Amino acid sequence: MDDLRLLCFGDSFVAGVGDPRGRGWVGRVVEAAHAAGRPLMAYNLGVRRETSVEVAVRWRFEAMPRLFAGADCRVIFAVGANDTTVENGSVRVTPDRSCMALDKMLDQATALGLPAAVAGPPPACDTEEQARAIALSASFAEVCAARDVPFWPVAETLLASRTWLDEAAAGDGAHPSAGGYDLLARTLLDGGLLDWLQAPAVTPGG
Amino acid sequence: MDDLRLLCFGDSFVAGVGDPRGRGWVGRVVEAAHAAGRPLMAYNLGVRRETSVEVAVRWRFEAMPRLFAGADCRVIFAVGANDTTVENGSVRVTPDRSCMALDKMLDQATALGLPAAVAGPPPACDTEEQARAIALSASFAEVCAARDVPFWPVAETLLASRTWLDEAAAGDGAHPSAGGYDLLARTLLDGGLLDWLQAPAVTPGG
Repeated sequence: MDDLRLLCFGDSFVAGVGDPRGRGWVGRVVEAAHAAGRPLMAYNLGVRRETSVEVAVRWRFEAMPRLFAGADCRVIFAVGANDTTVENGSVRVTPDRSCMALDKMLDQATALGLPAAVAGPPPACDTEEQARAIALSASFAEVCAARDVPFWPVAETLLASRTWLDEAAAGDGAHPSAGGYDLLARTLLDGGLLDWLQAPAVTPGG
Repeated sequence: MDDLRLLCFGDSFVAGVGDPRGRGWVGRVVEAAHAAGRPLMAYNLGVRRETSVEVAVRWRFEAMPRLFAGADCRVIFAVGANDTTVENGSVRVTPDRSCMALDKMLDQATALGLPAAVAGPPPACDTEEQARAIALSASFAEVCAARDVPFWPVAETLLASRTWLDEAAAGDGAHPSAGGYDLLARTLLDGGLLDWLQAPAVTPGG
C-alpha cells in the first residue's frame, strides 16, 4: 500500500524540543523515507513532560481522527524519559508501572489493528537518571520481545557519542540540538525503522 | 517570556503532506524562529481531510495536554481548504458554516486565554475550488478583522507563483513538495508571523 501514515506518540524528544531545524527525529525519518523512495507522512504527537502513563491516557483519543481505513497506519511509542525523573523525592513513574503502561498501549494498538513499534528513552545528563533510563529500556525490551514487537533502544548509543549530552548541556540541560536529533534518527534508522515500515503490516500479539 | 509554544491546528497542509523534508510550513517557521534568535517549539496538529468544522470539534481536547501555565502558548488555525471541496454534489462545508466554525474556535481560544492567529486556505489545482478558497479566505479575513485577530491570506500569493500548483500537479494533485512549503512558510513569515509571536500576548476579543 502506498499511503503510509506513521503516528508517533511520546514526549518532548518526539516533539523535537530544541531542534533548530524544526523536525526532531520524526521529521528526519520522514526525510529518510522520501530519500529512500518510499514517501511517508508522520503525525508528531509528542507532548512535553509526559510520562508513559500520561501518553497511555491520551494516545487513542488523538489516534482516532488520524486513522484512515484506506491507508497503512502504524504507531510508534517513544516514552519513558520523564518516568525516570525525580520529583518530590521519588521517580515520577516506577518501572513496573511504566511497563504496564507500555503493555496497555500495545494491547490497545492490537485492538485497533495497528502495527506498533517502540523506541526506548534517551539519556539525561544526570548519571542516576541515565542508569534508570538504561534499566527501563531493558525492561521495555522484554515487554516488546514477549509480544514480538520491534524495540529500538537508543540510550547507550546516544551515550557512546558525546554529541547528545554535550548539546543537551549547552542547551536547556535536557534536549539536544540538531546533532543529537540527527544521531537519534540515525540510531532508529540503523535499528531498522524503515525496514519495519516496509514490511507487511503485523499487529502486536496479545 | 522565553518559553514560546505554538499550537498549529488544521489539515494536511499543516501536517506537511508531500514535503520530502519532513517539516511542512510549521517546521520551516520553527527553523526561521531559531535563526532569528528566538527559539520556538511547535506542536503540529494538522489532520488530513479535516474541515474547519472537524478541527473545531477536536482542537481543545488536543490543546489541553499541550498547554503549560509557565509558557507563552499561542495557537494558529489554518483551515478551510477541505471545506471547499465537492463531495456528493455539494461542498463539504458551506462558507457560512466555515466562518461559524472559525468564530467558535476564536471564542474558545479567548476563553482559554490563548492568543490566536489565522492562516487562510491554500489553493487547489481545480479552478472552481480555487475561486471558493479565495472567497472563503476573504470571509475569514472579515471574521478576524472583527475580532482584531491577525489573519494571513496565502491563496493569491501561492497562485501568483507557479511553484505551488506545479508541484501539486506533479505530486498527488493536491499537495506541493518542498518548494511549495518553502513558499507557504515564506508567505506567513512575510505576513508577520514572527512579529506576532514576538509581540506581547493579546487574546482575541470576544
